[in-house]
Amino acid sequence: MREMTKANLANAFAGESQAHMRYLIFSDKAEKEGKANIARLFKAIAYAEQVHATNHFKTLGELSDTKDNLEKAISGENFEVNEMYPAYDAVANLQSEKQAVKSIHYAIEAEKIHEKLYSEAREAAVKDQDINIGKVYVCPVCGYTVVGEAPDTCPICGTKKEMFKEF
Amino acid sequence: MREMTKANLANAFAGESQAHMRYLIFSDKAEKEGKANIARLFKAIAYAEQVHATNHFKTLGELSDTKDNLEKAISGENFEVNEMYPAYDAVANLQSEKQAVKSIHYAIEAEKIHEKLYSEAREAAVKDQDINIGKVYVCPVCGYTVVGEAPDTCPICGTKKEMFKEF
Ligand SMILES: [Fe+2]
Ligand SMILES: [Fe+2]
Ligand SMILES: [Fe+2]
Ligand SMILES: [Fe+2]
Ligand SMILES: [Fe+2]
Ligand SMILES: [Fe+2]
Repeated sequence: MREMTKANLANAFAGESQAHMRYLIFSDKAEKEGKANIARLFKAIAYAEQVHATNHFKTLGELSDTKDNLEKAISGENFEVNEMYPAYDAVANLQSEKQAVKSIHYAIEAEKIHEKLYSEAREAAVKDQDINIGKVYVCPVCGYTVVGEAPDTCPICGTKKEMFKEF
Repeated sequence: MREMTKANLANAFAGESQAHMRYLIFSDKAEKEGKANIARLFKAIAYAEQVHATNHFKTLGELSDTKDNLEKAISGENFEVNEMYPAYDAVANLQSEKQAVKSIHYAIEAEKIHEKLYSEAREAAVKDQDINIGKVYVCPVCGYTVVGEAPDTCPICGTKKEMFKEF
């Protein structure tokens, strides 16, 4: 693909992914305001943006097989753990932005686990096999991710077991 | 919030939103390869990234009430319809990138409808009311969005009614 079109589609993927995310957040907010139909509209359109992002991603030729997808996922998590979030954390601390420090801390702790879980999955995927795991639980406050059983309280943020989302 | 922390959190929101989207796409692919557990792991971690993106977004102070959220959504859709996608379309045509032209065409046609639907919702939201709408249907191939009933075939891409996703 020619370079300018490639750069444009990569930008469009970034834009659609963020629109998708904003609409999910706006949907929750509308729900909390008791506007169930507007919440549903936001959710439907968030899905439409997912379709657009997926089309751009595939057009860019970025979708590979699961083994390679895990490789990319591991490298992204590794970058966040070892480069991006430590740099952002240093700046947020320097500027005494406490809420930002917390938001960054929650992310970095979860990304470490993500890198590990994806690495275990890759071991199976290189043999073209699936993994054998129980339920996966995610903390809705900090993103802490655990396989098997949810802890009584989240080790990162203290959220109660009952609040964890099961996959 | 100080400017450097703000820029970093905005970048982190963009990164988390794109990680979330990539993992949803990778999940579908793992599912198609018959790796149901890896697919489930991708889906769980996609949700964890949604938690991180949401935390960063709220820390940035970008979450407002539904009326203002709709305002932001309309302005984003309007930018895509009138600025971003026409520019990308011109370049993709110039460079004869047919697949990109199609991916862009699908998006722009849906964004026009999104702007209209959000504008109707805003009329209710300014009076602090919900909208009164039936089901919302979205085409899984192009993102075409319609309220009430799905068409027999998608007017943008020809996908059959039975494939539409209902919200
Ligand atoms: Fe879109
Ligand atoms: Fe992660
Ligand atoms: Fe937590
Ligand atoms: Fe994350
Ligand atoms: Fe849109
Ligand atoms: Fe369609």
